[in-house]
Amino acid sequence: MASRNIRLAVVAGDGIGPEVVAEGLKVLDVIAGQYDLAIEKTSYDLGAARWHRTGEVLPDSVLEEIRGQDAILLGAVGDPTVPSGTLERGLLLKLRFALDHYVNLRPVKLFPGVETPLAGVTPEDIDMIVVREGTEGPYTGVGGVLRKGTPHEIATQESVNTAFGVERVIRYAFQIAASRPRRKLTLVHKDNVLTFAGELYQRILKQVAAEFPEVTTDYVHVDAATMFFVNNPARFDVIVTDNLFGDIITDIGAAIAGGIGLAASGNVNPDKTAPSMFEPVHGSAPDIAGQSKADPTATILSVAMLLEHLGLPEAARKIEHAVGADLTERSGARSTQQIGDDIAKRVAG
Amino acid sequence: MASRNIRLAVVAGDGIGPEVVAEGLKVLDVIAGQYDLAIEKTSYDLGAARWHRTGEVLPDSVLEEIRGQDAILLGAVGDPTVPSGTLERGLLLKLRFALDHYVNLRPVKLFPGVETPLAGVTPEDIDMIVVREGTEGPYTGVGGVLRKGTPHEIATQESVNTAFGVERVIRYAFQIAASRPRRKLTLVHKDNVLTFAGELYQRILKQVAAEFPEVTTDYVHVDAATMFFVNNPARFDVIVTDNLFGDIITDIGAAIAGGIGLAASGNVNPDKTAPSMFEPVHGSAPDIAGQSKADPTATILSVAMLLEHLGLPEAARKIEHAVGADLTERSGARSTQQIGDDIAKRVAG
Ligand SMILES: CC(C)[C@H](C(=O)O)[C@@H](O)C(=O)O
Ligand SMILES: CC(C)[C@H](C(=O)O)[C@@H](O)C(=O)O
Repeated sequence: MASRNIRLAVVAGDGIGPEVVAEGLKVLDVIAGQYDLAIEKTSYDLGAARWHRTGEVLPDSVLEEIRGQDAILLGAVGDPTVPSGTLERGLLLKLRFALDHYVNLRPVKLFPGVETPLAGVTPEDIDMIVVREGTEGPYTGVGGVLRKGTPHEIATQESVNTAFGVERVIRYAFQIAASRPRRKLTLVHKDNVLTFAGELYQRILKQVAAEFPEVTTDYVHVDAATMFFVNNPARFDVIVTDNLFGDIITDIGAAIAGGIGLAASGNVNPDKTAPSMFEPVHGSAPDIAGQSKADPTATILSVAMLLEHLGLPEAARKIEHAVGADLTERSGARSTQQIGDDIAKRVAG
Repeated sequence: MASRNIRLAVVAGDGIGPEVVAEGLKVLDVIAGQYDLAIEKTSYDLGAARWHRTGEVLPDSVLEEIRGQDAILLGAVGDPTVPSGTLERGLLLKLRFALDHYVNLRPVKLFPGVETPLAGVTPEDIDMIVVREGTEGPYTGVGGVLRKGTPHEIATQESVNTAFGVERVIRYAFQIAASRPRRKLTLVHKDNVLTFAGELYQRILKQVAAEFPEVTTDYVHVDAATMFFVNNPARFDVIVTDNLFGDIITDIGAAIAGGIGLAASGNVNPDKTAPSMFEPVHGSAPDIAGQSKADPTATILSVAMLLEHLGLPEAARKIEHAVGADLTERSGARSTQQIGDDIAKRVAG
């Protein structure tokens, strides 16, 4: 009998999702052997195919089953044959909201050997963690349409921000910042325009800061932040920001740190009242699906974050080191499977 | 008597605003001599100093006076000694909204000789125009706070989008796209999450596209767009986007095109029912204010946009060429005034 059982929900999803998830699981299986873990995987057939077949996106019964798992590994969601938003809102965001993933954790780290589009930038310059709020802001879906199709049509979207929601994500960000050598936390928002939400974030940042005197804080408008990502990424250590700003800046983060093929993320429920979900930052990339062209590295790094979350930091480090070594020695084009094999071999070795 | 009278409202504003505006006016005066223009300048003392002195941001009577002018040249607005948002919302956005500046026009163009932080990118790769909506979206100020200061506090911000507002900015963007060699228009939004507003933009884009069969259109999510700015800016020709997304991507645009010191913009009322306003994209930069360190080039290029808007394209080209030549031959640190002098001399020469 294995020393530890992990019930893992696998949502491979659309496009390149299944391809990259297969490689993530390949690496996870090696780790399982080494750490005496029994990974009980349950695959959930969710995404475009199911929607086309049955019209279902995420049935309540499936959501409840997933709720009983220890963690979720997700590939990617969304397909051009499905109306935009159907799968994103109905599946991905539904999971994040229903499972209270209030921390969307996104490291932005340039590994040695990886090419960045920025001139003259080294791995020392890009090493930050973005703590993106995951359960409110403009992502609530609150809003609507009035007088649709007429010249007087109005469409609204509401950003909803609560003291409860803002405080818990800010406190989490402080904890992360306190654990890192630079101990610096930057709030990214747009408080000069979105004055109601911005003032709430600013006020709570100041309040929580009192609990973490060792952490330095500052503030940057989101527009300026994107500029700093390009011309001074070293100024950032830990960033805390709202759901939409976090979405945007972590894509630039991925771009400067070597591309979307390397960017991992965790949708974390720190209170562990429901399983957390780990996924690459990239989307389903339908244009390259089924061609073994996708880079599974982001998914493999997401598996490392999953292990860390489950209390297996040593296993997580092992995967990160294997990825680091693989990235340093990359040369020539490899298939999705080949990259997975190479990293799995290093983890095994 | 001069052949043409131009009544110009000058709002120098805060921080480096007055310094860069002085150089913009220096260049404008040279042009005035050459094109037989009488520029009647009225300076409006608005910004942090006035607010501290009188508590006023933009009195109605001043707004009405400005409304009677032909155009506005603005420096920068905002100061750390004034509560965040007070001047931005009360002065800058108030002007944009009251004068119906529904097109916020922001060229992103890498001039030859200018350093970009992107490796291996040439001026051919960065030449786009962002058409940012200027009078609605998340910038309306609609929203509020409930139960302030309690653990049950809620802060909302509403993005308001109308068929009227979306259609007019999209039509303008098509006109710009149709006038450029590549004839390509990209909608940047986040329609998979902000489904109500996103669907409105998509639907109206398709409708208006029927009037411009020569223009190719495509769509990119805002998060992916920021990535493309960094690793494939050449994919963009003209972009149309909402107020907030436009704010964010034009700052990355400025970063990749040589920095915020070069990025010009026009807040345009294409129907000319009120004066349009031209301003550098940068802010008031209080950290370098009063030190003659600010680059006035963005303001000088904004003056060129102003002249173009007033029907003086030849004068606009003249300034752009002078700036282009100045940028190619830049060397060593020059003061704000020196850069203004150098460009003015080229325009004169
Ligand atoms: C697919 C989409 C809904 C999602 C988001 O906007 O959060 C994605 O862009 C991400 O960053 O995980
Ligand atoms: C100062 C601020 C209100 C403004 C904006 O957000 O529009 C600025 O960032 C800009 O881009 O002109």
